[in-house]
Amino acid sequence: MSLEYGVANDEWDDERWARAALSFVCEPSSAAARSLADTPAIQVLADLRMAQMPAQVRDRGAIQKRLRQLPHPAGVLIPGDSGWPTQLDALAEPPLALWWRGGGSLRELCATSVAVVGARQATQYGDRMAVRISADLAGAGWTVVSGGAFGIDAAAHRGALTEGSSVCVLACGIDVAYPAAHSGLLERIAADGVLVSESALGEPARRYRFLARNRLIAALSRGTVVVEAAYRSGSLGTARRALELGRVVMGLPGPVTSSASLGVLELLRTDPRTHLVTCAADVLELCGTVGEHMVPARDGPKDRRDEVSEFSQRVLDHLGDASNSVARLAARLQCTQLMIIESLTELAVAGLAEFDGVWRVTSDGLAPAAR
Amino acid sequence: MSLEYGVANDEWDDERWARAALSFVCEPSSAAARSLADTPAIQVLADLRMAQMPAQVRDRGAIQKRLRQLPHPAGVLIPGDSGWPTQLDALAEPPLALWWRGGGSLRELCATSVAVVGARQATQYGDRMAVRISADLAGAGWTVVSGGAFGIDAAAHRGALTEGSSVCVLACGIDVAYPAAHSGLLERIAADGVLVSESALGEPARRYRFLARNRLIAALSRGTVVVEAAYRSGSLGTARRALELGRVVMGLPGPVTSSASLGVLELLRTDPRTHLVTCAADVLELCGTVGEHMVPARDGPKDRRDEVSEFSQRVLDHLGDASNSVARLAARLQCTQLMIIESLTELAVAGLAEFDGVWRVTSDGLAPAAR
Repeated sequence: MSLEYGVANDEWDDERWARAALSFVCEPSSAAARSLADTPAIQVLADLRMAQMPAQVRDRGAIQKRLRQLPHPAGVLIPGDSGWPTQLDALAEPPLALWWRGGGSLRELCATSVAVVGARQATQYGDRMAVRISADLAGAGWTVVSGGAFGIDAAAHRGALTEGSSVCVLACGIDVAYPAAHSGLLERIAADGVLVSESALGEPARRYRFLARNRLIAALSRGTVVVEAAYRSGSLGTARRALELGRVVMGLPGPVTSSASLGVLELLRTDPRTHLVTCAADVLELCGTVGEHMVPARDGPKDRRDEVSEFSQRVLDHLGDASNSVARLAARLQCTQLMIIESLTELAVAGLAEFDGVWRVTSDGLAPAAR
Repeated sequence: MSLEYGVANDEWDDERWARAALSFVCEPSSAAARSLADTPAIQVLADLRMAQMPAQVRDRGAIQKRLRQLPHPAGVLIPGDSGWPTQLDALAEPPLALWWRGGGSLRELCATSVAVVGARQATQYGDRMAVRISADLAGAGWTVVSGGAFGIDAAAHRGALTEGSSVCVLACGIDVAYPAAHSGLLERIAADGVLVSESALGEPARRYRFLARNRLIAALSRGTVVVEAAYRSGSLGTARRALELGRVVMGLPGPVTSSASLGVLELLRTDPRTHLVTCAADVLELCGTVGEHMVPARDGPKDRRDEVSEFSQRVLDHLGDASNSVARLAARLQCTQLMIIESLTELAVAGLAEFDGVWRVTSDGLAPAAR
């Protein structure tokens, strides 16, 4: 296995080992973590009172041994690794190290990825939509990024796994099954995708870690889709982080009578930077580069010719002919002049024809191919 | 009854009579209607071959007699009347005359009005939302404007009538009950509100008249709310007209799985001039003048202090004190220093506190009243 991806092996240099060790004792945004911006990790570590550190921090072999014992490949990525997802550098406080576990490459998976997030207490509608949009994104070759929580997070992974792979960002160690009910789902994600965390091996999920975790979900992906979120739901935090990072923020609407959708609707209603999406094609239209991925074709804009009767459409087809008159049109269409006059009135009201001494077709009235 | 509102009486001048007569023979947007911009109506009428006109057009007394026989006051408004709704002058092709019937003043009712429109084939959700939003708008003193069709139109009127009155713009004569099943509803609207039409007495509804009618609904009201509309539904035409007129255009979202909502969602998704609304308060926030009408108070913006534990909120409350330290905070809150450190970490991650030699509260961490 390659050092590129920070895979556990015997060749960890001081920086990788020190950052891995520090992540056992420093939370994201701690003073120690911030000092890494201009101080080698090994020096920051040396300033800590090593005697108070857990045994595994004092023994670099112990960390690597634990990584090797996990199911699926696992390792520690640090900034500068060729496998480091550089989009994390947009964060004011990037993680000091990323613990990962799984068969996929985090950097490659996240290069074209979208976060699908939402409420823990999802409705059947939200659950279904998260599955559908994630399956379609994965089917189009994109990676779905989400947390490991109940509700929308789990539905997003389940959907993505039917067509491709996903990235799960945890608020606990990559070897901790949290919530326990998702241990099977987490192993399925790890097969072709990746589990990733800032927290060291064995660390439990904590409330403030979810907040820090949300910034990673936002930063790793090109855009974030919120499928369901109650009015003041914490799951809108990821959307807020994504907006701060200049990422695309999208909301999938639901009925205004569903409290599980009110937070999404409020986001869409009040923040003009957010986008309403109804399906994966809408998401890729916003997040994809032109020509990069196949987006299903969409019905064209409304043809105003459809607004008038079939007979008037026939009249319109003949109106382009030179030297038309009501009498000639009636003769050509084998009908009374009164029928022609009524039809011309209908066409004029619809903006498809106009009278200007003679009757003419307007630009709206031209057949789409002729415009 | 006053001439102000064009009430049928014996004092019709030539212009009013000629415009009423012309509306029996000219459709909106016809050459004759357009020539009224710079030619007196009586002269336009004189150019028509009067012998071919229906008897009632040749006899000015006949029209007035028919108006007097209708239930509720009725009349014909023409541009320049003090009762003429001047917002119609924004139309490139204003109506040559407006036939009206009902107990209310069209101009006064439309001064603070919102159009609520949508699909004929509404779902139970759309129906319920149109009733609710219209009742709330009427309860706030606003007038609801809509057509007389099945589905959303009828629901909008039913809702408005529970709390106030409404304006119904018809694509047929004001004495024609179309659809017939709505004859009772139309009479209820006419009691305190107004039925209004460009079409002359006795005229049937025709497809192209619905298109012309939609521009009146859009022009009469400050904004248009589309409650339900299928993907390429004609009921989006009113929204398009309203956008052309610079009016506020709003859509009430529904589930993306409901074909009856897809047109609304498409409108909201693709046109950045449109606004998502979830209730009457949202509508009035967009259409009302500040202080003009009471808008129910809304929950304030999210307080980020809610994102951290109650204990950390207590720590935050004490952090503003001068010369704080971990030891002093622990003493004051009667807890271990470790608990304070963990709490400060949580606060830092949430962006509520920062460490800069000493711990400080960030601006986000201040209590709302202190900001």
